Amino acid sequence: MTPQTADLAKAVRAFVEQEILPLEATFLKHGFKAVLPGLQNVRQKVMAQGWWLPPLHAPEGMGLSLSAFARLSEELGRSPLGHYAFNTQAPDIGNMEVLQRHGTPEQKERFLKPLAAGEIRSSFGMTEPEYPGSNPVWMNTTAVLEGDEWVINGHKWYTTGFEGSAFCIVMCVTDPEHPNPYARASQIIVPTDTPGLEQVRKISVMGEPGEDWMSHSEIRLHQVRVPRENLLGQRGRGFAIAQERLGPGRIHHCMRWIGIAQRCFEMMCQYAAKRELSPGKPLGSRQAIQHLIADAKAEIHAARLMVLDAAEKVEQQGAEGARVEISVIKYFVAGVLQRVLDRAIQVHGGLGMSDDLPLSFFYRHERAARIYDGADEVHKTVVARAALKEYGLEVSL
Amino acid sequence: MTPQTADLAKAVRAFVEQEILPLEATFLKHGFKAVLPGLQNVRQKVMAQGWWLPPLHAPEGMGLSLSAFARLSEELGRSPLGHYAFNTQAPDIGNMEVLQRHGTPEQKERFLKPLAAGEIRSSFGMTEPEYPGSNPVWMNTTAVLEGDEWVINGHKWYTTGFEGSAFCIVMCVTDPEHPNPYARASQIIVPTDTPGLEQVRKISVMGEPGEDWMSHSEIRLHQVRVPRENLLGQRGRGFAIAQERLGPGRIHHCMRWIGIAQRCFEMMCQYAAKRELSPGKPLGSRQAIQHLIADAKAEIHAARLMVLDAAEKVEQQGAEGARVEISVIKYFVAGVLQRVLDRAIQVHGGLGMSDDLPLSFFYRHERAARIYDGADEVHKTVVARAALKEYGLEVSL
Amino acid sequence: MTPQTADLAKAVRAFVEQEILPLEATFLKHGFKAVLPGLQNVRQKVMAQGWWLPPLHAPEGMGLSLSAFARLSEELGRSPLGHYAFNTQAPDIGNMEVLQRHGTPEQKERFLKPLAAGEIRSSFGMTEPEYPGSNPVWMNTTAVLEGDEWVINGHKWYTTGFEGSAFCIVMCVTDPEHPNPYARASQIIVPTDTPGLEQVRKISVMGEPGEDWMSHSEIRLHQVRVPRENLLGQRGRGFAIAQERLGPGRIHHCMRWIGIAQRCFEMMCQYAAKRELSPGKPLGSRQAIQHLIADAKAEIHAARLMVLDAAEKVEQQGAEGARVEISVIKYFVAGVLQRVLDRAIQVHGGLGMSDDLPLSFFYRHERAARIYDGADEVHKTVVARAALKEYGLEVSL
Amino acid sequence: MTPQTADLAKAVRAFVEQEILPLEATFLKHGFKAVLPGLQNVRQKVMAQGWWLPPLHAPEGMGLSLSAFARLSEELGRSPLGHYAFNTQAPDIGNMEVLQRHGTPEQKERFLKPLAAGEIRSSFGMTEPEYPGSNPVWMNTTAVLEGDEWVINGHKWYTTGFEGSAFCIVMCVTDPEHPNPYARASQIIVPTDTPGLEQVRKISVMGEPGEDWMSHSEIRLHQVRVPRENLLGQRGRGFAIAQERLGPGRIHHCMRWIGIAQRCFEMMCQYAAKRELSPGKPLGSRQAIQHLIADAKAEIHAARLMVLDAAEKVEQQGAEGARVEISVIKYFVAGVLQRVLDRAIQVHGGLGMSDDLPLSFFYRHERAARIYDGADEVHKTVVARAALKEYGLEVSL
Repeated sequence: MTPQTADLAKAVRAFVEQEILPLEATFLKHGFKAVLPGLQNVRQKVMAQGWWLPPLHAPEGMGLSLSAFARLSEELGRSPLGHYAFNTQAPDIGNMEVLQRHGTPEQKERFLKPLAAGEIRSSFGMTEPEYPGSNPVWMNTTAVLEGDEWVINGHKWYTTGFEGSAFCIVMCVTDPEHPNPYARASQIIVPTDTPGLEQVRKISVMGEPGEDWMSHSEIRLHQVRVPRENLLGQRGRGFAIAQERLGPGRIHHCMRWIGIAQRCFEMMCQYAAKRELSPGKPLGSRQAIQHLIADAKAEIHAARLMVLDAAEKVEQQGAEGARVEISVIKYFVAGVLQRVLDRAIQVHGGLGMSDDLPLSFFYRHERAARIYDGADEVHKTVVARAALKEYGLEVSL
Repeated sequence: MTPQTADLAKAVRAFVEQEILPLEATFLKHGFKAVLPGLQNVRQKVMAQGWWLPPLHAPEGMGLSLSAFARLSEELGRSPLGHYAFNTQAPDIGNMEVLQRHGTPEQKERFLKPLAAGEIRSSFGMTEPEYPGSNPVWMNTTAVLEGDEWVINGHKWYTTGFEGSAFCIVMCVTDPEHPNPYARASQIIVPTDTPGLEQVRKISVMGEPGEDWMSHSEIRLHQVRVPRENLLGQRGRGFAIAQERLGPGRIHHCMRWIGIAQRCFEMMCQYAAKRELSPGKPLGSRQAIQHLIADAKAEIHAARLMVLDAAEKVEQQGAEGARVEISVIKYFVAGVLQRVLDRAIQVHGGLGMSDDLPLSFFYRHERAARIYDGADEVHKTVVARAALKEYGLEVSL
Repeated sequence: MTPQTADLAKAVRAFVEQEILPLEATFLKHGFKAVLPGLQNVRQKVMAQGWWLPPLHAPEGMGLSLSAFARLSEELGRSPLGHYAFNTQAPDIGNMEVLQRHGTPEQKERFLKPLAAGEIRSSFGMTEPEYPGSNPVWMNTTAVLEGDEWVINGHKWYTTGFEGSAFCIVMCVTDPEHPNPYARASQIIVPTDTPGLEQVRKISVMGEPGEDWMSHSEIRLHQVRVPRENLLGQRGRGFAIAQERLGPGRIHHCMRWIGIAQRCFEMMCQYAAKRELSPGKPLGSRQAIQHLIADAKAEIHAARLMVLDAAEKVEQQGAEGARVEISVIKYFVAGVLQRVLDRAIQVHGGLGMSDDLPLSFFYRHERAARIYDGADEVHKTVVARAALKEYGLEVSL
Repeated sequence: MTPQTADLAKAVRAFVEQEILPLEATFLKHGFKAVLPGLQNVRQKVMAQGWWLPPLHAPEGMGLSLSAFARLSEELGRSPLGHYAFNTQAPDIGNMEVLQRHGTPEQKERFLKPLAAGEIRSSFGMTEPEYPGSNPVWMNTTAVLEGDEWVINGHKWYTTGFEGSAFCIVMCVTDPEHPNPYARASQIIVPTDTPGLEQVRKISVMGEPGEDWMSHSEIRLHQVRVPRENLLGQRGRGFAIAQERLGPGRIHHCMRWIGIAQRCFEMMCQYAAKRELSPGKPLGSRQAIQHLIADAKAEIHAARLMVLDAAEKVEQQGAEGARVEISVIKYFVAGVLQRVLDRAIQVHGGLGMSDDLPLSFFYRHERAARIYDGADEVHKTVVARAALKEYGLEVSL
């Protein structure tokens, strides 16, 4: 890590402490919209600092390297609101990266520009309720070219951030007969006001319907028509583009999770140091509590080093070259996060269950870390497959 | 288990399937009050079957033995609504047991009778926010006898079911100078309309403020005056009475948790058998999924046998004689529950995160199982202390 | 458990304490043969007590039920020498059961009688080095009937107790073309002095070559000829007979493991109560140690109840009816044993690593518990398969 | 890691494969002395390569940095014989480092020179059977200055490598009245032929009495007299010198453990790729096996990065500045090692239990990794103490 990155991370850490954490109590009690005005204000300060969109290339963003942003993402991840303040929330940041790389000049002007400016939001529609996320080539949403229009029909869910988004990037089967199943799909930009695109519902997740970018929708597409020019990147390259996005995206998630874990670690230490079990005998004097702390310390340290290592490997060899490292951190760090969160709640007792602290929010919403972007089971098989291949065994996924 | 108990459990299982599970979807989407009319209807059917208040002695209840009710409680626990339908929800059932055993005839007439009839609800105020739940003798709520009235001042939280309750049984320090710290407190019945008793707020827990008996309140008592006759049991016996209640209460919890775990187990098996990863290849054909199922099967079986064993020991030797067994099941079964829930969610993937299924509800609310009624750490120390005592070592808690 | 069984278990426990544990130090230092004279003496006392061969039917044994012997086996399992003293060591006890059930009068006279009298020992040859133990139908040892003789050729290893045994029961393929792969093998009694039967070596296991019944051999059979009458049970029933033996055999193992775990538990409590970390501060005052004790207590209790439950189910429904329960205890109890042993060693520190105590012996030799008689992975799949079948999914092993 | 270090590690890896692994079969079957002639030969080749004593400064050694040697130590750790071949086996390497830093010119001439040349061996006597290793200041061996001689009395065990050693560095209380308990002891060099120094026995550990440097002795010192000049370093600095040695020593251990874990990982992958469960179906096609591999991969990767990170911190800030990092890796890596070993054995089944492979050797002897040089429990408390201190809580060890 360069001294510049270290300084930046330190400054951002202080900024998060001063500007973002104070909004959390209201957020936890009244939801995202209650803090939106405050967050807009914070966003102005972020822009004023020159920190806007750290991982995106110029002209829209700061252009930090993956490993530099990984470090920053940890700091932003300490709060559920951190990434939004820097306009790096999912799925917008991923959509921006894809548009920057694959968008036509017209697509950039119309979709990327306002998105990067924070004026609109976007969503990404990939998963379908009838098909397993672990099998990306098995889907049912189709897009057929009729004249100069794509006619799209399908059913998606867990379409993150659909509510309030201006457009949705939809993964569609466009070439169902292509011999290579990984070349059958394309990504198409669908403005959300297009007739035939219907939000069936917001999916209530872990007790919350969610709001805005923090929500997941079930949507239907019925004879949805968009211009031919809304194809994003090349036809048949839908999976390839998704893959490009998911590799670094997993590193972003992992570093964000480390931020959460680190925050929880600090909270559990602080509470253990202060809370008394009996007069003069703090919780932290109990060895069982000490060992929860020690295990968390070790695991977070391991996770951080592994994520930085994977980020460096991606920088040197590309996401494909670091595929094993990315899969390893996906399940390892998600596991660390879950265990650290669990310990932090246990140390806080009843208070840890309550929404007075962000622990419960993290506990509920980050259970999904072991599921989204490839479940643990999928990534473990990827890693084992690579290991066994070195000894001559080819295993199918 | 007698054949009668087995038959009863089977009948109750069918009843839960037919009458209670159909209410769950509405409950999960719209909350408890949305299903209250339906539940009132179910309660009539329960009464008609002669199944009302199974663990309570006559004349109010069926008078099942602890081990017979343990078996039943598993069936009721399969749904978040099961116990309410039989009027055995916490903390009402515990309050009824205490009133039946320690209440004066007047207390029984005024408080127990309508409670047992399901006409009113009650609450129990023990935990205080400033003091650790693990140290029961350290509390700050006091009751001073002035003339014929108890004057109560204090601050409680996690007062379960306070909202909508007709009265609250409040643990108060009445004899602060008693040399035995365990003889300093008493339980006093406080009608909730008594001046000075204020609900500060419902505590939002794991994302939900809760409703009715499914809520936890923070309350303040400021110069609250109740008649001398509202003392429940003997003065200075507050802890002893609480202990009496907590022993069997923990067994009830454990068996309810097994019901939850069993339900989740069935759901994960069913989903694994049906959901296809690719055409013709169900999830259950994957060995990683199979082993999650096998581990759950073994752990639930272990937990069930241990709870029945503890219930039998309580019947034979009293709660005090079975103290070690009760502590053992408290942490063992809570751990099994958490792991089984986690596996069930993992098997269901994104669907498991959603509120379309009860998994998320259980996952969120039962994280507390390892905390309430004595955290894991407390019970483990109780068990170790008893083991070490046999070798001559006296360890303080 | 009947009072008689409880009394017997108590008496046997005292006997083990007084007669067998004192031999352990010599055994651990100098091996089995160094204590053989002492053990012969103990065997006389066992016979005098009427405790000889508890699980075997009359006339050879006491005829205890499976669940009564399960309880006794725990007591014997507390020492590595316990089962030998009662003539119930593997594989002899299994061989006796098979001979009692399937042996001809001549086989009983020649092989069972001296074995039951403790005059000879026996061995069982099933596993082959080139084939996985998890696939019983894939083996290479063949027996061909030539005239009145079986001519056997093959290669076995992990032939337990071969050294010093008078005969070996060998699993051989006799009907390689039978359409049902489970009907291709037979068990044949081979006296160990038969020409062509060669002990290649004793397999050194976990640092020890082993001695006598406590050893495992690699053997080769080259044109070994035994009389036709040496067929044990019916031709083609080799697997069926093995299966009959393995079910109760696994229960015996599990209960023995519980005896080991219980012994280790007692040792760790005793050491924690006595050993001081600093003057006046015993090891057991440390919460981390207490929680190791509490976890061990809970797991041993779970394991014991599950084994007794499985034994009762076998008595009621036969080994086939209790197949799932037997598989469950096989991996659950083996796991408990490994964890308890690990904790006991950790509590004892350097002393736990040494051969001054039996912990190291158990730690080394019982690692195999998760492997022999079906590895964890195999039994978990058996259990999951049964669970998924209830939801309509047929999974192959 | 510099390219030079990478090249060196690669060369050493090849050397270990070609020169050392071929000696293992004989070592596992017949013990250390059986391979000693072969190892002497290998040592000549090591010297010829210029690789002798990599971590020791000139003139005796190569003078590799800690992090460079850490990398090398992984390669040497892949075999139980690797470190001996490079003369970096414990406790000799630690003794050499201490002598190099604190020895007088005479001590260096007499003790360091032949030790560094591989002509003699040495031992280190610290732990006492009556006192816990976790409390270094509680010991009973004393040295009293009478005229020009130290007169030593005491009792030690786990004196590693005592058998066959030319001298033993003994930790003795020399200043029992010093107010600072950490300033009461000194290290004194005792030639093993000094009258009064008696080897009571070699301690049999995990089934093996051990040989030579691979053994642990119990020794007694009765009126043992050595010249005043045999004091190593300053009087009263015994603990300080030991601490200096233990910090980097723990890093050496950790990297050696990673070498073992990596070797086991490779073995399990290779076996899983080759061994068939049924014709054409290798073990590695089973998902349960794949996930054991994936978990091992992730954990070893985590461990390696953490050890390198700790080594760099020691280089930058000294062992005291990296105390938390060293404690973290001590328990984290020891835990990884134990789990990887366990998985490797499970994958190998019966073969993994046998001494045909080095798995069993590692499994038995490295169980001590969680005990020696500070048990897990001690290091976890060190880490938690440092974390809690940042929040104002001072916890005693």
